[in-house]
Amino acid sequence: MRFIDEYLKDIKDRGLYREFKFFSGPQSKYISIRDRKVLLMASNNYLDLCNDDRLKEAAEAAIRTYGVGSGGSRLTTGSYELHDQLEKKIADFKNTEAAILFNTGYMANIGTITAIADKEWTLFSDALNHASIIDGCRLSGAKIVVYKHCDMEDLQKKIKAYEGNKRLIVTDGVFSMDGDIAPLDKIIALAKENNILTMVDDAHGTGVLGDNGTGCVEYFNFKEQVDIQVGTLSKALASEGGFVVGSKSLVTYLRHKARSFIYSTALSPATIAVSLCSLDIVKNEKNKRIRLLENAQWFQGELRKLGFRVLESNTAIIPLIIGSAEKATKLSEKLFKKGIFITAIRPPTVPEDTSRLRITLMATHSREELKHVLDSLKEAGMELGII
Amino acid sequence: MRFIDEYLKDIKDRGLYREFKFFSGPQSKYISIRDRKVLLMASNNYLDLCNDDRLKEAAEAAIRTYGVGSGGSRLTTGSYELHDQLEKKIADFKNTEAAILFNTGYMANIGTITAIADKEWTLFSDALNHASIIDGCRLSGAKIVVYKHCDMEDLQKKIKAYEGNKRLIVTDGVFSMDGDIAPLDKIIALAKENNILTMVDDAHGTGVLGDNGTGCVEYFNFKEQVDIQVGTLSKALASEGGFVVGSKSLVTYLRHKARSFIYSTALSPATIAVSLCSLDIVKNEKNKRIRLLENAQWFQGELRKLGFRVLESNTAIIPLIIGSAEKATKLSEKLFKKGIFITAIRPPTVPEDTSRLRITLMATHSREELKHVLDSLKEAGMELGII
Repeated sequence: MRFIDEYLKDIKDRGLYREFKFFSGPQSKYISIRDRKVLLMASNNYLDLCNDDRLKEAAEAAIRTYGVGSGGSRLTTGSYELHDQLEKKIADFKNTEAAILFNTGYMANIGTITAIADKEWTLFSDALNHASIIDGCRLSGAKIVVYKHCDMEDLQKKIKAYEGNKRLIVTDGVFSMDGDIAPLDKIIALAKENNILTMVDDAHGTGVLGDNGTGCVEYFNFKEQVDIQVGTLSKALASEGGFVVGSKSLVTYLRHKARSFIYSTALSPATIAVSLCSLDIVKNEKNKRIRLLENAQWFQGELRKLGFRVLESNTAIIPLIIGSAEKATKLSEKLFKKGIFITAIRPPTVPEDTSRLRITLMATHSREELKHVLDSLKEAGMELGII
Repeated sequence: MRFIDEYLKDIKDRGLYREFKFFSGPQSKYISIRDRKVLLMASNNYLDLCNDDRLKEAAEAAIRTYGVGSGGSRLTTGSYELHDQLEKKIADFKNTEAAILFNTGYMANIGTITAIADKEWTLFSDALNHASIIDGCRLSGAKIVVYKHCDMEDLQKKIKAYEGNKRLIVTDGVFSMDGDIAPLDKIIALAKENNILTMVDDAHGTGVLGDNGTGCVEYFNFKEQVDIQVGTLSKALASEGGFVVGSKSLVTYLRHKARSFIYSTALSPATIAVSLCSLDIVKNEKNKRIRLLENAQWFQGELRKLGFRVLESNTAIIPLIIGSAEKATKLSEKLFKKGIFITAIRPPTVPEDTSRLRITLMATHSREELKHVLDSLKEAGMELGII
């Protein structure tokens, strides 16, 4: 396979070679790598629940009662009462009629888009949508019309250019590498006006945004205006899996048509038990969210004062733009030496020349810890000529 | 969404409506549904390990040490030492240079095929390949050439018709709904002769076939002749997740290029710990496999003696062909009343007019239990005029 060797040589030459960093303990604000303890500023574990005793106990209890693997797909032998409970609880949490679980957010997007759209459809897709939305759009065979990131003028123009009665606007709720929130109010208005379906993937808003932590739809004070909502259990909710919520008929439809749902072994009972428990925590512990978002606002302000280029964010994701992949990697390495873990995000995850440190906050980070990060970033940033 | 209501009405009319059956206890040869105990003859839990105490203890220990969710994707913050250990152990088990984990077998297939092939490629795909292979082929944008199920004459003819240096033959090792094994010896010979890459998905062979239980490649006494091998941890191995094994450079390539790998939260540490432990069990407890396959041979012979139409199988999957979806459902329901759980498999999972009971055996089924199933099948089959 010569093409593989050529590809690997090329990415090495371009400084885009990727290696794993293996943790030797639980994911929390401090993590262990080769027995070194570092402060984690790069996790999607926004509420710092991955090592929460309540979730661990819920998982262990489920293992004792239900065993480990689920043994089959949801429609054959892989459905447990826990799955039923979780689907009902998610629907309730999201204030929708029904919910359907997928093994991952990736599978939720790819399964849902291909179940809905075929070559007769037109899909309007934000330029910075997650890879799983892009792959879902591509696999559906529909006409894909990409609009400029969160640009409503461009979307409107494209809606006019592509008429028809089988149309869907699909967008991330929170953009994972940029931390900004899609202008859902405007998107929904455009959709209603033009009789277009809407789909929002709120992987990074679920558990973080809105008064009850239900995500970006609540953030905009919407109720049932979004036709298809996708979410994840693997980020703020500290578990595993993705889901879709919406009308009962949508969910029944996906149960019959979403291939990634039908043709995959169900999530294991322990995973489901963790999600059931973390949904309760998210609902009941609002203070975690408040602190998380306050810290994020304060922290990005401080970064700007230091002269860093930071994208505007109303979420827990703070993108510190560096530009060159090599420099972003060097900054990440310097911070690691100072005991701080922040991943450098490089192409193809982000566009060329927009490599960045994707800083994410946790609800448990203290101001003191964040100040230490700012000091370290200042020092390293000056050494590298970034500020 | 009127198209959804129309679709749902149509499948109801055609007897293809699907509902969940929720289990209230662990997946083992006897399972509980609404507090009724039934004999399970439809699980992919071939070695009956989902409720094995050793696996449960391994999961609980991992939860205590590593917490629950993994917190990030493998290339950001979701890699634990356990992931590293498992990838090495899988490579060792499969006798290959390296391994890479995916969240599901679906994601392994879709991620791998799209990482390898693009519109310059030609993919030769067995007509009965798993949905995830089909979706991977479609998403890749490659030219897809479907050959008749396990038909080597047809494959040879099509290889001649589609020349080029970017070609891949992709096949299931064991076909999930038919239970037969792909003629890998002949496929590999054709591939070598014509300088074509090969990819085999051994979801249902892994842990079941071959002297060491490593799957269909070992069953044929091959070593390194298959370029890309896919497998799953969610069937005989009683855990969750998929994997790809092959050369070091292939695995490194997939780490950089497989989008379903890059853009998804890593499997949780507990899941990984279960897989590590079940690989040991599979290696050490050969007697389970021997009994499983002996029972399967005996059982299908008895079914044929009763006059049932049963596809030839050398695996633990025994397809009892009924034809009509309605009749298959009725037979499944009758058996359920007699305390036996066998899922009716209907379109679109299998072609129209080939609806079936997909009977699968477990290593722990006793002859006495199987005789009871045969008696019940005979009775129900006569009542429905099937035999």
